[in-house]
Amino acid sequence: MAVGIIMGSTSDLPVMEAAIDILKDFGIETEVDIVSAHRTPEKLFDYGKNAHDRGIQVIIAGAGGAAHLPGMIASLSPLPVIGVPVKSRNSIDGWDSVLSILQMPGGVPVATVALDGALNAGILAAQIIGSSNVHVQEKILAYKESLKNKVIAGSESLKK
Amino acid sequence: MAVGIIMGSTSDLPVMEAAIDILKDFGIETEVDIVSAHRTPEKLFDYGKNAHDRGIQVIIAGAGGAAHLPGMIASLSPLPVIGVPVKSRNSIDGWDSVLSILQMPGGVPVATVALDGALNAGILAAQIIGSSNVHVQEKILAYKESLKNKVIAGSESLKK
Amino acid sequence: MAVGIIMGSTSDLPVMEAAIDILKDFGIETEVDIVSAHRTPEKLFDYGKNAHDRGIQVIIAGAGGAAHLPGMIASLSPLPVIGVPVKSRNSIDGWDSVLSILQMPGGVPVATVALDGALNAGILAAQIIGSSNVHVQEKILAYKESLKNKVIAGSESLKK
Amino acid sequence: MAVGIIMGSTSDLPVMEAAIDILKDFGIETEVDIVSAHRTPEKLFDYGKNAHDRGIQVIIAGAGGAAHLPGMIASLSPLPVIGVPVKSRNSIDGWDSVLSILQMPGGVPVATVALDGALNAGILAAQIIGSSNVHVQEKILAYKESLKNKVIAGSESLKK
Amino acid sequence: MAVGIIMGSTSDLPVMEAAIDILKDFGIETEVDIVSAHRTPEKLFDYGKNAHDRGIQVIIAGAGGAAHLPGMIASLSPLPVIGVPVKSRNSIDGWDSVLSILQMPGGVPVATVALDGALNAGILAAQIIGSSNVHVQEKILAYKESLKNKVIAGSESLKK
Amino acid sequence: MAVGIIMGSTSDLPVMEAAIDILKDFGIETEVDIVSAHRTPEKLFDYGKNAHDRGIQVIIAGAGGAAHLPGMIASLSPLPVIGVPVKSRNSIDGWDSVLSILQMPGGVPVATVALDGALNAGILAAQIIGSSNVHVQEKILAYKESLKNKVIAGSESLKK
Amino acid sequence: MAVGIIMGSTSDLPVMEAAIDILKDFGIETEVDIVSAHRTPEKLFDYGKNAHDRGIQVIIAGAGGAAHLPGMIASLSPLPVIGVPVKSRNSIDGWDSVLSILQMPGGVPVATVALDGALNAGILAAQIIGSSNVHVQEKILAYKESLKNKVIAGSESLKK
Amino acid sequence: MAVGIIMGSTSDLPVMEAAIDILKDFGIETEVDIVSAHRTPEKLFDYGKNAHDRGIQVIIAGAGGAAHLPGMIASLSPLPVIGVPVKSRNSIDGWDSVLSILQMPGGVPVATVALDGALNAGILAAQIIGSSNVHVQEKILAYKESLKNKVIAGSESLKK
Repeated sequence: MAVGIIMGSTSDLPVMEAAIDILKDFGIETEVDIVSAHRTPEKLFDYGKNAHDRGIQVIIAGAGGAAHLPGMIASLSPLPVIGVPVKSRNSIDGWDSVLSILQMPGGVPVATVALDGALNAGILAAQIIGSSNVHVQEKILAYKESLKNKVIAGSESLKK
Repeated sequence: MAVGIIMGSTSDLPVMEAAIDILKDFGIETEVDIVSAHRTPEKLFDYGKNAHDRGIQVIIAGAGGAAHLPGMIASLSPLPVIGVPVKSRNSIDGWDSVLSILQMPGGVPVATVALDGALNAGILAAQIIGSSNVHVQEKILAYKESLKNKVIAGSESLKK
Repeated sequence: MAVGIIMGSTSDLPVMEAAIDILKDFGIETEVDIVSAHRTPEKLFDYGKNAHDRGIQVIIAGAGGAAHLPGMIASLSPLPVIGVPVKSRNSIDGWDSVLSILQMPGGVPVATVALDGALNAGILAAQIIGSSNVHVQEKILAYKESLKNKVIAGSESLKK
Repeated sequence: MAVGIIMGSTSDLPVMEAAIDILKDFGIETEVDIVSAHRTPEKLFDYGKNAHDRGIQVIIAGAGGAAHLPGMIASLSPLPVIGVPVKSRNSIDGWDSVLSILQMPGGVPVATVALDGALNAGILAAQIIGSSNVHVQEKILAYKESLKNKVIAGSESLKK
Repeated sequence: MAVGIIMGSTSDLPVMEAAIDILKDFGIETEVDIVSAHRTPEKLFDYGKNAHDRGIQVIIAGAGGAAHLPGMIASLSPLPVIGVPVKSRNSIDGWDSVLSILQMPGGVPVATVALDGALNAGILAAQIIGSSNVHVQEKILAYKESLKNKVIAGSESLKK
Repeated sequence: MAVGIIMGSTSDLPVMEAAIDILKDFGIETEVDIVSAHRTPEKLFDYGKNAHDRGIQVIIAGAGGAAHLPGMIASLSPLPVIGVPVKSRNSIDGWDSVLSILQMPGGVPVATVALDGALNAGILAAQIIGSSNVHVQEKILAYKESLKNKVIAGSESLKK
Repeated sequence: MAVGIIMGSTSDLPVMEAAIDILKDFGIETEVDIVSAHRTPEKLFDYGKNAHDRGIQVIIAGAGGAAHLPGMIASLSPLPVIGVPVKSRNSIDGWDSVLSILQMPGGVPVATVALDGALNAGILAAQIIGSSNVHVQEKILAYKESLKNKVIAGSESLKK
Repeated sequence: MAVGIIMGSTSDLPVMEAAIDILKDFGIETEVDIVSAHRTPEKLFDYGKNAHDRGIQVIIAGAGGAAHLPGMIASLSPLPVIGVPVKSRNSIDGWDSVLSILQMPGGVPVATVALDGALNAGILAAQIIGSSNVHVQEKILAYKESLKNKVIAGSESLKK
């Protein structure tokens, strides 16, 4: 059980680290790499064609601007691909990142999360693994409980 | 192995049928229902709290306008939730549907697909099941092959 | 006569304080709490179902991003619900907050105010109470007079 | 107990009728008129200054394009003003109507509903009256029950 | 020959000063005041109704957010009204200011300039006066010459 | 006293006719021509350089898409230039037409009216002429009175 | 001297035909094919890697929605790539097509033309070939002359 | 073999320098100048009419806001014109710059690159020259190789 996490550039790493960290918290192995659709298209091809054969179950792909990495990986791989639109430096307020990942044509889905939503990409990957693994699903339920408890603590400290 | 497909209104059914049909093609059982976040909040609660306990592995939720169904189900369920933004009659060109499903806060992801992208929601659900089921993953690979063959046939008929 | 003020996260408090302060100025009691649609759905349910029975007349709900709190409370409560779209850290320039609060389906209104418009939410709550309470309505009229006087003072200091 | 319903042009009537009809269903008196901010500014002034003195409790104002009617009425009246952005013929997809009603400056709120959301404006007006009138609030609760029943009927007919 | 320059708030003054300054450069008298559509509606009325009778030839009105000042003045006055959309603190990136000034209904024009374009509002006012005043028109021609010379100087310094 | 009305293409004529008609109603002479910034740049130059010398007082220029005609004429002429953004067939919902006319740089204003707002362009041209011509200004005042009367007639027929 | 014209789907052909036709008018050979980035990624690779070696000088690529074809071809080929954003059936008013083609990262340009702007893509390809081929450049100059003449004919028929 | 690089203002130089630098790296001569469509229209005319006659093969034009420079140069010159939308100080988040360059009418293309994408404009100019010059095309291929190597180095340093 492993999640492949790729991104178009090392500059995406500060955003994407939230996915790596939460998956570690869930005890799920991650494999992190830089794969650029536009600068290393051969590596993109190898990655997309072979990830499922070497044990990857879910792929998380983050990219910004005209972000083609998630969609191209989804074109090549039978695995579920989670796309993280990154609000990169030259992005037009993130709209380009969101639309070029979300609006995939019929036949080739990308599971898109919020702008810079790498934390949610990690949780979604865990939920996908948890959909056939009771042990991981229990961790998700515990995580949801911890979210609730933080809000309740905030509510109580507000009332004081 | 089953996918729950819910939508906010019977008027969403013409869009959502593409998800039902493709999952049938993949031989995956579906359970279809109308659940309105705003008009049947108790049913929303029951659905979200219990879906994983009665064997649902993935939930597909379609809604339009201020579309809260996918996000609220994701708040209640440990399962992966796929959101389909529907371009409903009063939607502002679909932007409200997209943003109110996509932009979930950290902790509660929704796997969002394209506007009216129910076909891709069905395929994504199959990919999620296929991530731990070789038999389904092979069907995905065959489906991708069929997509390729249709394009090649189109290319050949263009050249004549 | 009391106004319930809720928000999705303690991080919304700096924005929402303007509603609390103006209602105090109008002599209207407020009850402030953190209720997260996505992290404390049970609390959301209890709040929405019971607020009117314990004397709340108007609810102000602030949230950002895919902001489901105002709409879900409006789904559960017969009270008028005022929604404050908050421009939270990960919001796409506030558009997601605005559209996911404003574009409610027919049957379940949310009285939406401007982005980060908590001051106006407080005034609107007072106007609602004032619509059946002459004493409060007179305070609204006095408040409007004070707004006018500030502009006139600005105009005069400009001319000097 | 009465609701004033005004609109900028007779061409807004087909949209605004939903507010008139639902208020009749709730047994609430309505007073309907055409008031144009840009073509009858004197009438706008009279209306805004005097509505509360002749027994109006809530004002619903619909307008499209650069829609100044709701905000100007809110500037003149101490009553709660509900704004309905109308997607008029020359509107830029409704964005102008929405933003020129919603984004009021601090001090002068307009309770904005969805684009063409006159039905919700009517319900919101009833909720405002119901916030100090148990009889009307009970009708709101019954209306919410009827919404639920329609969804459940739709769900049942889907399953057959 | 005089231009009336009004704005909704003293906070608009830093933007609007460019109009005052350029009109002084053209030797055209200006009359500057604060007139708030939403906080001083009576003053708005007086201003709009009477400006042409006391010798004003053109009105420049600046406002931000749901900016009703230019359009309401245009509703009341027979004079040409130039609207300056101001990107105020709570504006949604300026879109609300632009659309609520620009998209006036048929019958009541506002001559809209660019976001924060007060300099251009001043020049446009001078051009309007210059359309029937050769002396002012010659100043406009000289001003255009000075713009050209600055660019040519920039071009020459670039080549060195 | 004459207004020059130009447009980028004969396909803009159905929109631009409203300007021609209203100016005729005001008794103001018009001179109509096709001038394309992109296809007849020499004619653009001649027109812009000479219009003021042959008695034109105001120029109305309509164009769609990347609409450069109004701004380029404003670059060449000392006259006030009114720009009409036309929602042409290939325009992206009119946004390109609006932004490429409105957002002129400091020094070169275009008096922009609403999308497809040729009627208002004609009225604005009359107001500009009326700013130094009492006879025309009186016609503007009468026109405003006629607008008011139509609304009042609509209001009265509604009440019956 | 040849231009490769590719598109993601046969449904793009009605838009893309304008490029084929104008290049024929210029006497430039075209090679037309269907290449889908998402459904035939291997063909995409072959096409991008080899086009320049078999005599193609310019590539025109049209696609809609999350349109990755132009950018991926640009990633693989040293040739200038012209991207045509197609407003396909599921596109969000064309914004997704435009942004996912235009906003390419530094290092991998796509020469983007207007939405559905295939005619201009063909002309641009001819201009590129004409930049080193006087014979083609003369045809471009003649084409520009013909555009001018059509406008002048329209102007003359308007005056009659 | 030379590329003309022009921009509307010296304030665009920090953005446009990336085009100058990369063309120097490719060994291609550049000619840099300031040409303002709105402030130096005569220079615009001379430049556009004559560039191809003095040996320029490609023109790069950068401008912001209502950016008419690239389109007007394309109207005057038979050369391929590359437009760089600059996110200037008063631009509305760059949308005005992008749309007023991209959305050219049929007959007059501008090869538009990403917002502030001057680096890509330089590379595209080199690709255009390289389409008929094997020596330059080889440099493009080497440049693409260097992009790939940087990503691979980043990938390797990530794994350590």
